[in-house]
Amino acid sequence: MQSIISYKELIEKELNLLDFHFEPANLYEPMTYILSLGGKRMRPTLCLMAAELFGLDKSGAISQALAVEIFHNFTLVHDDIMDEAPIRRGKTTVHKKWDQNIAILSGDAMFVKAYELLVDADPKLLPSLLKIFNRTAIEVCEGQQYDMDFEAREDVSIDEYLKMIELKTAVLLGGALQLGAIIAEAPVHDQELIYAFGKNIGLAFQLQDDILDVYADPEKFGKQVGGDIISNKKTFLLLKALELADENQKEELNKWIDLPSGDFDPEEKVNAVKLIFDALNVKDLAQTKMDEYFQVGMEALQKVNVSKEKKETLEELAEQLMVRDI
Amino acid sequence: MQSIISYKELIEKELNLLDFHFEPANLYEPMTYILSLGGKRMRPTLCLMAAELFGLDKSGAISQALAVEIFHNFTLVHDDIMDEAPIRRGKTTVHKKWDQNIAILSGDAMFVKAYELLVDADPKLLPSLLKIFNRTAIEVCEGQQYDMDFEAREDVSIDEYLKMIELKTAVLLGGALQLGAIIAEAPVHDQELIYAFGKNIGLAFQLQDDILDVYADPEKFGKQVGGDIISNKKTFLLLKALELADENQKEELNKWIDLPSGDFDPEEKVNAVKLIFDALNVKDLAQTKMDEYFQVGMEALQKVNVSKEKKETLEELAEQLMVRDI
Repeated sequence: MQSIISYKELIEKELNLLDFHFEPANLYEPMTYILSLGGKRMRPTLCLMAAELFGLDKSGAISQALAVEIFHNFTLVHDDIMDEAPIRRGKTTVHKKWDQNIAILSGDAMFVKAYELLVDADPKLLPSLLKIFNRTAIEVCEGQQYDMDFEAREDVSIDEYLKMIELKTAVLLGGALQLGAIIAEAPVHDQELIYAFGKNIGLAFQLQDDILDVYADPEKFGKQVGGDIISNKKTFLLLKALELADENQKEELNKWIDLPSGDFDPEEKVNAVKLIFDALNVKDLAQTKMDEYFQVGMEALQKVNVSKEKKETLEELAEQLMVRDI
Repeated sequence: MQSIISYKELIEKELNLLDFHFEPANLYEPMTYILSLGGKRMRPTLCLMAAELFGLDKSGAISQALAVEIFHNFTLVHDDIMDEAPIRRGKTTVHKKWDQNIAILSGDAMFVKAYELLVDADPKLLPSLLKIFNRTAIEVCEGQQYDMDFEAREDVSIDEYLKMIELKTAVLLGGALQLGAIIAEAPVHDQELIYAFGKNIGLAFQLQDDILDVYADPEKFGKQVGGDIISNKKTFLLLKALELADENQKEELNKWIDLPSGDFDPEEKVNAVKLIFDALNVKDLAQTKMDEYFQVGMEALQKVNVSKEKKETLEELAEQLMVRDI
């Protein structure tokens, strides 16, 4: 545990050293602001850990780790505009604190800063770094677009949903790890294994998020339990329930889905939908799927051609990610 | 002239060959759409010409030329959101034809596509290509932010205005040329000269735009003459007039500036402001400044260490850019 915290401390220190005190202030201050809001720094931690796994010092891939974190925060700034979100990590979102135009443009500029940091590396590694980063970045855009498209669709399949969360969330965990592996000049086969580890852990993590949103202990959960149910979010649980429901259950689910917000008591809706979820056993099905992804990820890590001891920190992080109170 | 057209034809052909027919359609169709709206393709033409100037075949820097054009179109998609512009090149803008979220996200994805094309080059050239492209991209963001900031400020100086148009418009012409020069492996000194040529021609071009907006022949001008005056745009002409105006003239200018739109006859406002512009001779002052930049640009081109004949196409293009009916 101590060792995982030390990565985060290094990342926080290096983020603070980035100097965005440039003009115009309306372009650069939002960058400093969003990066100061904290978070687990999971993606840059993975990048540093992968570099270390393949023999580099902890700080060897720090530029690429920061690139990944800045890219991630750029997507948060733009996603918050799209979702009209007022709050991010307990603080006002950039487009609310400044305005939408500033949020669009400082997001764009953060994207350039991410590239600047990414390519701060041995020139011979640039083609590989750029290939993985570009592919990951475009996939994250695709995932976000699918997520928006799904809001308006009523026929989203489980497979489509899994593809969406893979693109929107999971590939960036894989990409962060692979970038670290590239910096450490790991063999391509090992790079691909560590990418697969990250992607599958990412999928498991997202499925756990879906489960927690409904079944978390309200005392320990940071946000409103049942939020996804209230907003009709097409999670694994809802899609699976719609797939398995008999006529009566489908009718009741759709009744709750079709009620305009304000026309129902949130707690009543959450309890009613949860009863159907329980009857259809979708929590267990989601957990089974989650465990599958987790296992596939851990097996990929086991196949990486370095000693078992070196993998312990990554194993520990993966397990820590999955042990949240349900 | 024939030769300049042949570059544009090559660029159109190659843009058509780019295959954006991917899923999700809402991410990729806006890219195809905005790139199909045409335009002069000035920036990619400059990139190809610079590569040719330093000994490459016309198509030698085609990937980088397309990268510059796609980057430029990405900025147009995001700028049109910020400006709430309904029309671009006579067609509906992306955020109006689809919606704002799609415009934000497909713009982001275009930015990645620009990087993908940029780095399709000999790996040894990547550090130079990325350095120039990243610097140019961040400067274009800075320029756009200054432009937005200036709308709300009443104390914009001429120097600040010139810096803004340099960042927002001129550096991309310089950058396009330098990227072509890098691909042709031109010496750094020549790269810097060709960059200076493009930047200064770009500044001259933008000043000419300011002049044309007020003094163009309405029969030949594509848009409403006087549009900048009607919208109180802080152009070189208005800023210079405010700088030189005596108390009475300043009072009259500010009277027109402060009138809410709808509370004045547009033609009357244009004529009144134009009378003050004429009394203060700001058109000539703008033309003098424009000629200065043009000369500095042409001198930089002359210093480039290649034969005079090879520079003729670029000279011709620069002159063609500046010969628009006033």
